[in-house]
Amino acid sequence: MPGLIECVPNFSEGRREEVVDEIVRAVASIDGVTVLDHTSDVTHNRSVITFAGSAQPVVRAATAAVGRALELIDMEQHTGAHPRIGAVDVIPFVPLGTTRIEECVDLARRFGEQIAARFDLPVYLYGEAALRPERRRLAAVRRGQYEAIRDEIATEAHRAPDFGPARVHPRGGAVAVGARKPLIAFNINLRTDDLGLAIKIANAIRESSGGMPAVQAMGILLENPGMPRMAQVSTNLVDWERTGIAAVVNEVRRLAREAGTDIDHCELIGLAPTGALLEVTANALRLADFSADQALELRLARDR
Amino acid sequence: MPGLIECVPNFSEGRREEVVDEIVRAVASIDGVTVLDHTSDVTHNRSVITFAGSAQPVVRAATAAVGRALELIDMEQHTGAHPRIGAVDVIPFVPLGTTRIEECVDLARRFGEQIAARFDLPVYLYGEAALRPERRRLAAVRRGQYEAIRDEIATEAHRAPDFGPARVHPRGGAVAVGARKPLIAFNINLRTDDLGLAIKIANAIRESSGGMPAVQAMGILLENPGMPRMAQVSTNLVDWERTGIAAVVNEVRRLAREAGTDIDHCELIGLAPTGALLEVTANALRLADFSADQALELRLARDR
Repeated sequence: MPGLIECVPNFSEGRREEVVDEIVRAVASIDGVTVLDHTSDVTHNRSVITFAGSAQPVVRAATAAVGRALELIDMEQHTGAHPRIGAVDVIPFVPLGTTRIEECVDLARRFGEQIAARFDLPVYLYGEAALRPERRRLAAVRRGQYEAIRDEIATEAHRAPDFGPARVHPRGGAVAVGARKPLIAFNINLRTDDLGLAIKIANAIRESSGGMPAVQAMGILLENPGMPRMAQVSTNLVDWERTGIAAVVNEVRRLAREAGTDIDHCELIGLAPTGALLEVTANALRLADFSADQALELRLARDR
Repeated sequence: MPGLIECVPNFSEGRREEVVDEIVRAVASIDGVTVLDHTSDVTHNRSVITFAGSAQPVVRAATAAVGRALELIDMEQHTGAHPRIGAVDVIPFVPLGTTRIEECVDLARRFGEQIAARFDLPVYLYGEAALRPERRRLAAVRRGQYEAIRDEIATEAHRAPDFGPARVHPRGGAVAVGARKPLIAFNINLRTDDLGLAIKIANAIRESSGGMPAVQAMGILLENPGMPRMAQVSTNLVDWERTGIAAVVNEVRRLAREAGTDIDHCELIGLAPTGALLEVTANALRLADFSADQALELRLARDR
């Protein structure tokens, strides 16, 4: 698996199943690409497809998906709860395995330039691929959404796209193309129903309130029928090489014990990089000189 | 990676580097095979090559290796400390990823029959692939070594090979072909130099003295220049799905603490199945509903 890359495009369609299916089919039809997941949200009227492969097939699949979405989705007809700027709203490229983020930055920029030319579509680069520092945060690119970009792109300098025309695509609007590290969605369930404690711990660990780098967190109360109520620290680890699962769990355990309770169990939501999981192994066993290369299937995947 | 299989042939040559290199080259020249490792031991006069791939390339590479070894190694000239019955002494097939042991049993039997016919070589099936229960243990097949088989194969019924002629190959002797599960070599270093304690713990956990299933263990004393002496429980886990790393470490920790000491750190020697390492992650985090499929690169490897 040389240069394995994940792509997670978000589309402004979550209600017409047949449209989503068509776009998924366009991705899956490309040789060398694996569709890992796709989910649709009716309230948001939005879908997310997760697929992976090496650079060339991934670019080919993303291009096919954009083409199909521009045919099938009309932004002038779109409503939904989630902020969006186009039929294909956002296309992040994510490094997997031994791929470096720099490769995804390069890929995002080349891909952005290509689709801008091919589909006559304004492209904004965001995340690690941003060319303007103020566009690193996706929320900044999306401010005012499709409607504001449509109305201001020709006249407001700060709306000028990085590639493509200074007018929105007649049906598809605009698109944000970027690169980011893989995200781990990880929940820690406490042996208590004290929501206040979960919120307090979330505040203590999250970067935005001065906690651990690259950690997002919030406290919530799980109320499932037939189950005891349980306070949860729900986290996103946006750069596990800076702050990994083990570090977060150790800190949450320490804070929970300080408050006289403990972690009950944890949940990993969706997929996570194998390296991030093996780091927990190495930490738990205090493994000397451990390398993820010692995991047989990973080593093989790398060498093939 | 459909039906990924590892093959770990042992050759009766550990001194003439150029011979080992030739055999490694024969393996590596087969498309679809990855050579993961090869090591030679001068005292044992023996080499081990580890390679992997799907069934067809692995069989092709193992056949090429046998052919080369029969040309280059003469058992009538071989001496060494390690028991051996032939130029290619033993060829185990090991299931990786989602491959089942039964597939390796089938493969070993078909492969054994093929090389017996092709090279006019007596083949004994051992391990999970054994056709006679008394041949499950490799030591039983190897009793008396090359010289005893050479002298008794035509006349002693219990020496009759499973495939091939009732006489040894003029240069290559005989070969044991088998199937086994992947083996994990795992050491647990204690915070003490009390060798007696390491031996006591090893005795308590190993299957042969009534301990944990599929665990081999011994106590040793590490004496490295410039390092404090340290007692070690050195283990082989021969079926991690029966007894995994976490179970062994938890038990050793319990016994060490009972004796007033603790585990200092652990060492994983060589490669281990990723699933066995992720089981430690799941155990350490008490992960609810975890599946090794949530490890991104593994999931991808499975689907490609």
